[in-house]
Amino acid sequence: MSDGSDKRWVVGVDLGGTNIVVGVLPLDGGTGELLTLESRTTEAQKGAKYVVDRIVHMVANAIKVVAEEHGGSKEDFAGIGIGSPGPLDRKTGTIINTPNLGWRNFPLRDLISNAVGLPAALDNDANCATYGEWWLGAGKNVDNLVGFTLGTGIGGGIVLNGEIFHGASDVAGEIGHMTIDSTGRKCNCGNYGCLEAYASGPAIALRAIEGIEAGAETVLPDLVDGKLGKITAATVYEGAVLGDAYANEVMKETAKFLGTGVANIVNILNPEMVVIAGGVTKAGDHLFVPLRAEVRRRAFKSAQEACQIVPARLMGTAGVIGAIAMFKKEVLGHV
Amino acid sequence: MSDGSDKRWVVGVDLGGTNIVVGVLPLDGGTGELLTLESRTTEAQKGAKYVVDRIVHMVANAIKVVAEEHGGSKEDFAGIGIGSPGPLDRKTGTIINTPNLGWRNFPLRDLISNAVGLPAALDNDANCATYGEWWLGAGKNVDNLVGFTLGTGIGGGIVLNGEIFHGASDVAGEIGHMTIDSTGRKCNCGNYGCLEAYASGPAIALRAIEGIEAGAETVLPDLVDGKLGKITAATVYEGAVLGDAYANEVMKETAKFLGTGVANIVNILNPEMVVIAGGVTKAGDHLFVPLRAEVRRRAFKSAQEACQIVPARLMGTAGVIGAIAMFKKEVLGHV
Repeated sequence: MSDGSDKRWVVGVDLGGTNIVVGVLPLDGGTGELLTLESRTTEAQKGAKYVVDRIVHMVANAIKVVAEEHGGSKEDFAGIGIGSPGPLDRKTGTIINTPNLGWRNFPLRDLISNAVGLPAALDNDANCATYGEWWLGAGKNVDNLVGFTLGTGIGGGIVLNGEIFHGASDVAGEIGHMTIDSTGRKCNCGNYGCLEAYASGPAIALRAIEGIEAGAETVLPDLVDGKLGKITAATVYEGAVLGDAYANEVMKETAKFLGTGVANIVNILNPEMVVIAGGVTKAGDHLFVPLRAEVRRRAFKSAQEACQIVPARLMGTAGVIGAIAMFKKEVLGHV
Repeated sequence: MSDGSDKRWVVGVDLGGTNIVVGVLPLDGGTGELLTLESRTTEAQKGAKYVVDRIVHMVANAIKVVAEEHGGSKEDFAGIGIGSPGPLDRKTGTIINTPNLGWRNFPLRDLISNAVGLPAALDNDANCATYGEWWLGAGKNVDNLVGFTLGTGIGGGIVLNGEIFHGASDVAGEIGHMTIDSTGRKCNCGNYGCLEAYASGPAIALRAIEGIEAGAETVLPDLVDGKLGKITAATVYEGAVLGDAYANEVMKETAKFLGTGVANIVNILNPEMVVIAGGVTKAGDHLFVPLRAEVRRRAFKSAQEACQIVPARLMGTAGVIGAIAMFKKEVLGHV
């Protein structure tokens, strides 16, 4: 196995239910600035073949652009790292099942690798995003960190001693589905009281709407022309930043729930860093101040003192950058 | 550093608030049967010097007994592994603070090492117990496991790739203090809704007593001559095994709480095995059947299918055996 030292670049693919993002970095990561970056809609409803063709086309284009601009060819590329929703089987490079894309037992890695003609590696999207933050983002200087990615769901990734921790069947890091209230809100996963049922984007919006329907006074309805159904988590962050007391209260509750989940991770894994990613970080101190306070309340002193709780740095590119790092680790043996 | 291959034996010390247990194993662990085993009360109230003298005396005696019986001398011993309540600093071998023993910044490792004249290593008692189960107990054939030890509190240990996982400040594995009900019962640690507040020995007894005071019909009071204050967790296990419906109900509730905590660990770490230790395992299927059912309900299918949930095997000796394994790993570089 080549260690890739004769190669110059690596391609990263971040496949999501909504968008596909493709980028290229120099083999050593360089300054962390992507040499090319393209984002297109996934169009999953058009079927698997369409999506794979789109990815292959985007990868081929990225290779062409970089090779032309910097003087080189496909031979200078070590390969392709792919982050995808799971669950998936890393060894065979197969998607086991993705509700968002509607795929089952789908050999994504080899389809892309064969079509492009370069080696490829596949891992979970949340793992890749966390690994990206570890490699070139907020966690650059730590060995052990845990990533929380708040979006439609709450994804997670665990990096221990500089490696993604996968567990026995590649599903380690499902922190969104830890129970924080055993008789609490029903979660989409079927369980009750998961962190995700309180602090995902849709859960934040739902809690805000429930309060408004119960009579809370707030500017939030004005931000959506009175159509409560249009309130999203982003509306709540906006309201909080505008100084709306109710929106702030919803953010404080969010911080308490999220802080409970973070405190559990701090007590269990005693990481050096917890990185929070996703739109929720736009709320800034409205989130992080009460979040850190809740962790202080709930976690062991020596564990929480050892742990920085910080926003992610690589907004929008952590998945691509982490897929590149993951490819390097898996195929070249080092990051 | 010697790899110890010229040595024949290792001493293990399991220091608890109630008892000190000391044992000896052959360097390679042999059949796992301790060549000598002695247990004495700790008598912590007599002060630190008294306890250290007692440990040193027990270790010296164990060395003498084994050397005489098997023909050898102190020179044939590689050293001493010590498991102790924490928090502690492994690098300096210092107990930072043990509420049970009343020690602060106490250099336990070097006091014992110097007095006996052998190298020593110090680690947390719950870590050692889990490591013992991994080395020669229930987890003999797995790489990644998590131990739950239910007693006065709930301790935990995490073994990843055959090594104790310590985290950033040696406090990883505090699984007893993960929140499972964010607005729930107050825990001794000051937090609300910790697993320990529901499923430790005293918590099981307390929940049983509360139900009886509320009018539950049960044989439990008869088992303690009508003195409710004498009901312990062991009384509840006894009642469950006798077929008492109420005791069984309390065990089912315990299993639900514990199962919530185990499911969280299964979702977060995706281990191959969870080992449950402590008197609670005496309840047998009255605990494990509903416990496994709760984990199936709460954890991701591919994570829970990959995880065996089993009782510990090394009843009473896991701490000593794990301290020996820990010494080997720390000082000799291998187990």
